[in-house]
Amino acid sequence: MSDIYKPMEIETESFRIITEEIKAMGRKVPEEYACVIKRVIHTTADFSYLDSLYFSEGCMEIAKTALRGGCKVVTDTNMARAGVHESSLERLGGKAICYMADQEVARIAKERQVTRASVSMEKTAQAGEDYIYAIGNAPTALLRLIELTQEGRLHPRFVIGAPVGFVNVVEAKERLIASGIPCIVPRGRKGGSNVAAAILNALLYEVTER
Amino acid sequence: MSDIYKPMEIETESFRIITEEIKAMGRKVPEEYACVIKRVIHTTADFSYLDSLYFSEGCMEIAKTALRGGCKVVTDTNMARAGVHESSLERLGGKAICYMADQEVARIAKERQVTRASVSMEKTAQAGEDYIYAIGNAPTALLRLIELTQEGRLHPRFVIGAPVGFVNVVEAKERLIASGIPCIVPRGRKGGSNVAAAILNALLYEVTER
Repeated sequence: MSDIYKPMEIETESFRIITEEIKAMGRKVPEEYACVIKRVIHTTADFSYLDSLYFSEGCMEIAKTALRGGCKVVTDTNMARAGVHESSLERLGGKAICYMADQEVARIAKERQVTRASVSMEKTAQAGEDYIYAIGNAPTALLRLIELTQEGRLHPRFVIGAPVGFVNVVEAKERLIASGIPCIVPRGRKGGSNVAAAILNALLYEVTER
Repeated sequence: MSDIYKPMEIETESFRIITEEIKAMGRKVPEEYACVIKRVIHTTADFSYLDSLYFSEGCMEIAKTALRGGCKVVTDTNMARAGVHESSLERLGGKAICYMADQEVARIAKERQVTRASVSMEKTAQAGEDYIYAIGNAPTALLRLIELTQEGRLHPRFVIGAPVGFVNVVEAKERLIASGIPCIVPRGRKGGSNVAAAILNALLYEVTER
């Protein structure tokens, strides 16, 4: 048992171990993306993210510029929203939003027999404001987001495309990558609300220099 | 792309794929634990949980009896709390509690230079009520929970021991297993708020027959 019990020391030691193990595997992580890749591994203890994380060209600067400017973040689950480091986001003037518990979204989703996640994306199109999107659960949210963007009704600043699972997940992620929308995507089936939040927090900490 | 877009159909199809792939791997999942094991794989898309989930003897009945009786659930993160299927829990008379954002907990943690997670466990010892614990992040919460239990100050009905990470995580989980407290534990480094919530939800759905 290690005698490290202080919060920031635990985090520092965790990143030291992650860095060391990546090196021991004979792997190198691009410096530009290291903060994201290592934080996802920190959140999941899953080194397979070394191979699966996709970064669109220039996405780091695009995302950081948006965050620096106080851009709000839309999530597709309350879990992802709860995982976002709120005080860092708010210090920049941002905010995390999730419409999954919205009454109107629930009603429309039931009526049309689609997921609330996909309807929640439509709701953001009415805001007259451009957002960052952190999708950690529903491929249906991601697919609707891409459609709305291609129809010119949504203008995402940057998208974290990290739904998890077995039905349309891989396909939705590949469609996001092909769309040209600035994005970070853990390719394949893996992802999750925790992964989406971790990617966003990694970018946030770069900006706030926590 | 599959043309399955209805929420419950997506879930049913996901579990069908999981069951099929487990079979194709030549593996068998004990019937008693299948609901938990498959839901964790559903949440993570990570089949390594086939090998890592530990169930203490009789834990399924102990947990279900507690939930059926309206036992409240304490989590160590707001993310795990947000992941718990609240309406199922509330229908049984239960509730999900998390003291991570509690002002007093934050103050004491800062004073003593320990994690808020460990102090949040102490706070539950003052309640005069026995809880289920779902730990998905902090090994320090789990270690403090075990100490308080061994000192006779805490009487957990059942513990989900699913912290994730690199510092004291494996050790804390093994200590929980050795303690004799009824528990479900993904052994090793992996786990997370999503995994803790998934295990709890699997048990909840068994009780409510969602």
